[in-house]
Amino acid sequence: MSTQAPHPALLIPGPIEFDDQVLQAMSHYSESHVGAPFVAVFGEALSMLRELFQTTNPASQPFVISGSGTLGWDQVAANLAERGDEVLVLHTGYFADSFADCFETYGVKATQLKAPIGDRPQLDEVEAELKKKHYKLITVTHVDTSTGVLSEIKALSEMVHKVSPETLVVVDGVCSVGCEEIRFDDWGIDVVITASQKAIGCPAGLSIVMASGRAIERFRSRKTPPGSYFGSWKNWLPIMQNYEAKKASYFATPSPQLVRALHTSLTQILSRPLSDRFADHRRASQKVKKAVADLGLKQLAAKPENQANGMTAIYLPEGLTPPEILPNLMKKGVIFAGGLHKEIATKYVRFGHMGVSVTDPKRDEIDRAIEALKTGLAEVGQKS
Amino acid sequence: MSTQAPHPALLIPGPIEFDDQVLQAMSHYSESHVGAPFVAVFGEALSMLRELFQTTNPASQPFVISGSGTLGWDQVAANLAERGDEVLVLHTGYFADSFADCFETYGVKATQLKAPIGDRPQLDEVEAELKKKHYKLITVTHVDTSTGVLSEIKALSEMVHKVSPETLVVVDGVCSVGCEEIRFDDWGIDVVITASQKAIGCPAGLSIVMASGRAIERFRSRKTPPGSYFGSWKNWLPIMQNYEAKKASYFATPSPQLVRALHTSLTQILSRPLSDRFADHRRASQKVKKAVADLGLKQLAAKPENQANGMTAIYLPEGLTPPEILPNLMKKGVIFAGGLHKEIATKYVRFGHMGVSVTDPKRDEIDRAIEALKTGLAEVGQKS
Repeated sequence: MSTQAPHPALLIPGPIEFDDQVLQAMSHYSESHVGAPFVAVFGEALSMLRELFQTTNPASQPFVISGSGTLGWDQVAANLAERGDEVLVLHTGYFADSFADCFETYGVKATQLKAPIGDRPQLDEVEAELKKKHYKLITVTHVDTSTGVLSEIKALSEMVHKVSPETLVVVDGVCSVGCEEIRFDDWGIDVVITASQKAIGCPAGLSIVMASGRAIERFRSRKTPPGSYFGSWKNWLPIMQNYEAKKASYFATPSPQLVRALHTSLTQILSRPLSDRFADHRRASQKVKKAVADLGLKQLAAKPENQANGMTAIYLPEGLTPPEILPNLMKKGVIFAGGLHKEIATKYVRFGHMGVSVTDPKRDEIDRAIEALKTGLAEVGQKS
Repeated sequence: MSTQAPHPALLIPGPIEFDDQVLQAMSHYSESHVGAPFVAVFGEALSMLRELFQTTNPASQPFVISGSGTLGWDQVAANLAERGDEVLVLHTGYFADSFADCFETYGVKATQLKAPIGDRPQLDEVEAELKKKHYKLITVTHVDTSTGVLSEIKALSEMVHKVSPETLVVVDGVCSVGCEEIRFDDWGIDVVITASQKAIGCPAGLSIVMASGRAIERFRSRKTPPGSYFGSWKNWLPIMQNYEAKKASYFATPSPQLVRALHTSLTQILSRPLSDRFADHRRASQKVKKAVADLGLKQLAAKPENQANGMTAIYLPEGLTPPEILPNLMKKGVIFAGGLHKEIATKYVRFGHMGVSVTDPKRDEIDRAIEALKTGLAEVGQKS
């Protein structure tokens, strides 16, 4: 039995529904951020992140910092690039524009390679761009929350290593970590940034980053100091290493409650093979996508290989807008999100299917949401 | 009856003990960060902060952002100063050094005016320094968590306005907001930065800032863009204004659970006259300070007018170190903090007396802590 008050199922692409135990960890009694019990919990959470990212290389470095996923961009832009550096940003939606803005803030020149809405830049286009000049790093949004477009990380990373071996491979995994496979070591990834409130299944408030040994070396060999103070790895690197070694350490006060919730969610995630978890998400996603097709609706991500497994961005029937359908779904106990991509925001809705809504067999939220979408569209269609 | 599991009383200068209702708000079921119920809660929390800071000027602007108190420094340094600007940092302990580091990160020249340990820069020294050159802003740590030194804000601010009227008055109130009086409008303060986990009584994870209309104008008239992305008011100002107007808005995902907990704690704080709350803290502080004196111990802050009301930094008896006494206190169910000021860290402990431990008549934590200190020192003294 859930201990949560009755509430509509939150099926937006983050925050997602959280498990009871995770929410209970949020109300843990107050404890010292440098006391042994919390230090152990924080250290274990950092170690568990290595498992989640499938990295066994001891040079890899996890970071967990109070903030939102956005703070991960600052960490990349302020620690891994210097003023005047060139970086390549692959664009599959709203979030690449913002990441590029972030680079510019720190004096880094961001070149965007854009694809049409719903598509992603093709490997040969990226390869051609990489040959034009020396990019210090390339960023790719694994799943763009605004479009539901999935990028192919493995082949991209292999190509980058071959064509431009000095270029760091940076993945924005805010909407992918925990629901899309990421093999950090095997795929040669240098950085994944993410946040707690999506497929990791812990309330919002934590910026989570995994950096490769190569990324840490790049950071260490900077000629200029990091461009951010709160996001500076100079400040955070010793802290994270100390906590993982179970040694108390202080730069800025972490959130014991959020870190305990993260520890709880990671423990749950890692209690099963990750491959099973990813298979669950693929299966739920296929069910949703089939239902969407059966309703005669199209996805923003037209090509099957571009479609995320943790969310679906759905074009509404011609003439229908999110404010017309979302309140209807809400009355049926289901919360979807409106559009976010500026050019087409009024034309689509987003359905998040990540975490316990997908993996907990006691929950029927995905089925209820599909049913609500079906009847809701019929009702709204009849009225208009 | 508390619903919290039995645990030692956390009497460090933050995080502090939290009220049951506040902790229960932390485990609120998941909700959309742009849904009407959460938007209303966030908006109300922002409005309540105006009351807490005693500002009725509609031009004042509250900010609540996922992060730690440290992020407030970035907000000041990256939004209210530009590269090459000069700022004056008053030093009463560890935290001024760090704030100065933060300014340097953003290319701002920080001059520190230092006082001997346990003291604060005197008004005439500050005045003389302000006359030497044009400082864009002056920062003062209201209560330095490393030393328990209290600064006098009202007289300082009046003097700054008289001597250097263009200089913004910036208060680091991380360890003072909620337990020391702050009259934002009356005292002519331009910025107070703080965090959730001290006298505001909400778990760590929120950077809280109040900015005056003059500070916002200064920000708006910048010649260069803000130096931080995650801390940029360009990104956050419209978001905060929208939330307070109960309009959904998005830049980076806030933490609904933390914001609900903040809403709960602010509601509790504002249910009584603030003057009563400050009087409670003064009374508890006097009790602690008298007990410390009765034990023949000295405070870092030697002069009574320099002594904070929410914490006491206590020199241990000659030869005794924190690792010898803290575990003894822990066995008695009381957690104090060790020293933090680098030069004397091994010589003192810190006792936090803020929030519900002071204001909730059902709690006896302060008395128990005083008793534990008495017997603990006697036991440790006998053994050595």
